[in-house]
Amino acid sequence: MVKQARAARTRESLIRAAAEVFAQDGFALASLAAISKRAGVSNGALHFHFESKSALARAVEEQAMEAVRRITEQAAARAGGPLQALVEATHALMTELSGNGVLRAGFALGGDASRGGGAALRREWQRWVEDVLRQARREGLLAEGVSPDGAASAIVAATVGFEVLGSTDRKWLSEQVITQFWGLLLPRLAGGGQPGELRPTPAAGE
Amino acid sequence: MVKQARAARTRESLIRAAAEVFAQDGFALASLAAISKRAGVSNGALHFHFESKSALARAVEEQAMEAVRRITEQAAARAGGPLQALVEATHALMTELSGNGVLRAGFALGGDASRGGGAALRREWQRWVEDVLRQARREGLLAEGVSPDGAASAIVAATVGFEVLGSTDRKWLSEQVITQFWGLLLPRLAGGGQPGELRPTPAAGE
Repeated sequence: MVKQARAARTRESLIRAAAEVFAQDGFALASLAAISKRAGVSNGALHFHFESKSALARAVEEQAMEAVRRITEQAAARAGGPLQALVEATHALMTELSGNGVLRAGFALGGDASRGGGAALRREWQRWVEDVLRQARREGLLAEGVSPDGAASAIVAATVGFEVLGSTDRKWLSEQVITQFWGLLLPRLAGGGQPGELRPTPAAGE
Repeated sequence: MVKQARAARTRESLIRAAAEVFAQDGFALASLAAISKRAGVSNGALHFHFESKSALARAVEEQAMEAVRRITEQAAARAGGPLQALVEATHALMTELSGNGVLRAGFALGGDASRGGGAALRREWQRWVEDVLRQARREGLLAEGVSPDGAASAIVAATVGFEVLGSTDRKWLSEQVITQFWGLLLPRLAGGGQPGELRPTPAAGE
């Protein structure tokens, strides 16, 4: 039991260390030696847990995917309606990107030309944003003339931009920037019919 | 004279080939051999023009920067007012990103962790967007309650998102997606005071 817990901790350290080295050097130049050194474990321990650099990258992406799913599920369950869920999920995603190197590296790996590989995380986020906006349309919550898929493109592009720009300058992930973004977009999405109810700020208690 | 023209053509081919190899393999894995082969010139000819892979990357970024400056200057000179200039420059930038591999590679190099280096292109674009929106504010063209710098953040993030997503899927750079984006944002930026005059579509003749 103690041994299992220690193995899980080592695996966790390796994933965090890999995320930091990928972010710093890019996937192509990241070395397994640098990753094991940063995690404070031997090369042998690294190879016990991960057979290759690609296996480490997949583990980083899987953990990042879990974070995205948790964020969107919590926002959907907690917020009062789809548009507020969209606002709260965006805030939560940016806050977590700011503090969680594994999530940041997971997104960055999807856009790393040296890795090829898919951008599964961005696609998952896009799918969720599209679903939520179509739900808003069905519930009559979108202003006239606003296309759910057009709005989804704009929101996905902006959030990918915040993520990419935020990887080198954290101010792009700040509550202020995201609140300004929603302060601009929300009145246009929702039209004039829902005054006061919708807030561009994050959920209380975050 | 003939010799000079040939040298200029060789240099141009090398820059284009480097852009293609950077986009495909990332900066870290891009090899000078692959670049000279793709350009159809000898390794010696490559080294005559460029002393290193970094020198090639700088040439790609310089050429991309010239394209961004040309696009923003033309939009500013041609469009009727700052908000329309913003719309037209965005359309022209995405159209050119779609067809110009050097511009695409220039933007991508700014976000390539393996290169480090600055994101000068994205900064130049951001600076221009901020300037244009402050001008719009001074001329009384922004709706009440819209902050020029908040709007600039949203527009820069979205356009960086279109650029990043468009590097693997060109539909993100399409006229339709960009028109939808401006169709969403423009009425909110300009308020109700300028109906009919502002168009979310690209300039005629593009």
